[in-house]
Amino acid sequence: MPNLAPPIATIDMAKAYKARVLAQCQETFEPIMALYLTDALTPKTLQNVKIVKLYPSGVTTGAESGVTDLSRYDRLFGAMQDMGAILSAHGETNGEALKRETEFAKVYESLSKKYPRLKIVMEHIGAAALADLLDKRENLYATITLHHLLYTLDDLLGGKLNPHLFCKPILKSAADRAALRELAFSAHPKVSFGSDSAPHAKAAKEGASAAAGIFSAPVLLPALAELFEAHSALGSLQAFVSDNAQIVYDIKLPQKTITLVNKPMVVPREIGNVVPMKAGETIGWSIV
Amino acid sequence: MPNLAPPIATIDMAKAYKARVLAQCQETFEPIMALYLTDALTPKTLQNVKIVKLYPSGVTTGAESGVTDLSRYDRLFGAMQDMGAILSAHGETNGEALKRETEFAKVYESLSKKYPRLKIVMEHIGAAALADLLDKRENLYATITLHHLLYTLDDLLGGKLNPHLFCKPILKSAADRAALRELAFSAHPKVSFGSDSAPHAKAAKEGASAAAGIFSAPVLLPALAELFEAHSALGSLQAFVSDNAQIVYDIKLPQKTITLVNKPMVVPREIGNVVPMKAGETIGWSIV
Repeated sequence: MPNLAPPIATIDMAKAYKARVLAQCQETFEPIMALYLTDALTPKTLQNVKIVKLYPSGVTTGAESGVTDLSRYDRLFGAMQDMGAILSAHGETNGEALKRETEFAKVYESLSKKYPRLKIVMEHIGAAALADLLDKRENLYATITLHHLLYTLDDLLGGKLNPHLFCKPILKSAADRAALRELAFSAHPKVSFGSDSAPHAKAAKEGASAAAGIFSAPVLLPALAELFEAHSALGSLQAFVSDNAQIVYDIKLPQKTITLVNKPMVVPREIGNVVPMKAGETIGWSIV
Repeated sequence: MPNLAPPIATIDMAKAYKARVLAQCQETFEPIMALYLTDALTPKTLQNVKIVKLYPSGVTTGAESGVTDLSRYDRLFGAMQDMGAILSAHGETNGEALKRETEFAKVYESLSKKYPRLKIVMEHIGAAALADLLDKRENLYATITLHHLLYTLDDLLGGKLNPHLFCKPILKSAADRAALRELAFSAHPKVSFGSDSAPHAKAAKEGASAAAGIFSAPVLLPALAELFEAHSALGSLQAFVSDNAQIVYDIKLPQKTITLVNKPMVVPREIGNVVPMKAGETIGWSIV
């Protein structure tokens, strides 16, 4: 995710960011870098990094430097489809929070028609209107987060308010979630898992002005296994979390095995100064 | 508001509650008491307190003792319409948060038809669907809060998350707010102001599980004056905040004058341990 402050907008910045990520890794890990779409990008830049992330201006954390006028990237998008680069997008307008994704469907459709050979990934979709585009437009793909599969707006605000479930795109209705679940549980070949995990400090989540983002990284695979099992969809899990993404993003990585077992995991209440998703809860699965 | 813990469900409890309110008052103040609708209520009780507040079970703070089956109050509602008592309601279902009021419109319509002489006040409405009922059903009335006139769901969660704007019924869309504003700014005769101010401690609003309710009491009249002035509706303010309610609830109170002047008021960041609405902001009007 290149929406850091400042945005990861050049190859040098991406290299430095990758080095920072690797410095935190105890195990073999190959981060796939993406560049923030700004005027700094040229077709030449994309020889080295082939994923470009589009943030419409102002729609999420770190989107202050985002795009206000898509038409200025006509030439870049044209070059991207010729070289097989991928456009990933945080697809929201600046409209009312609950309508932002549905309103952006028009933009996705129009981009997909204008650049029919450009692979466009609708990242972390939360709305049924975007799910519906997958079978309508051949060059549109999607990722889905754990939190949009698990929760709805009512988990955020239907009873008491839970700031730890505040994220962008905002959680939506049960009908929206059902559309996403159908894609995930059937391992729709154009859909893969995207965590969108965001470790904001507890103080930044529980104050009078809480940051958007959910720290799901510590529970991702066990919670996915529990959810897929509950919906008799364990057979789709491998494709959803791994195989589909390698095909969609056209990446080849060294083989690595993660084993999940049906053994309870208690989620810590805090990790460092961050409250993880499902803090204090027990998940039925663990990583061996 | 009788949704205390325990609920104010008997005349004795209402008397004790009134005494507690008066003990806090420096000036002349005549609180109009309402009783929480439970099985403890009988037509005889209503000789003394003529407003009954209906909380559907579980829909808001203090609604744990609320109603699960309206039909058991057939006899009571029949007696109420004969004696001119008023049924006030927190009109929400247990459905999805954003649909709860709209779904409850059916209940209001059906109650208003079954007891056509019973005055039913739809308290603190936030949805256009309820506003629409006023001109459709003669015996339906409404109150509107300051916060539902000022804010929409996007003020709560469209940018960062602001727990101090978390309330039930939840803030809704700009279209819903527009319907409410039309009623208030035109001083619709069936509509009056209801503050629904709820002074939850700061810690209860900014934690991992925040209580619903907005502490608007300290700013109500100045903020209303500012809002009505901005919409060239100052001429409707007196009817909205005072005259209409006296007619709707059929109450006569000693004359009292509050004077508002066009002079800035800075809202404290905290009052006691409570964060008021518009904390730290400046409002263009003050009470003399």
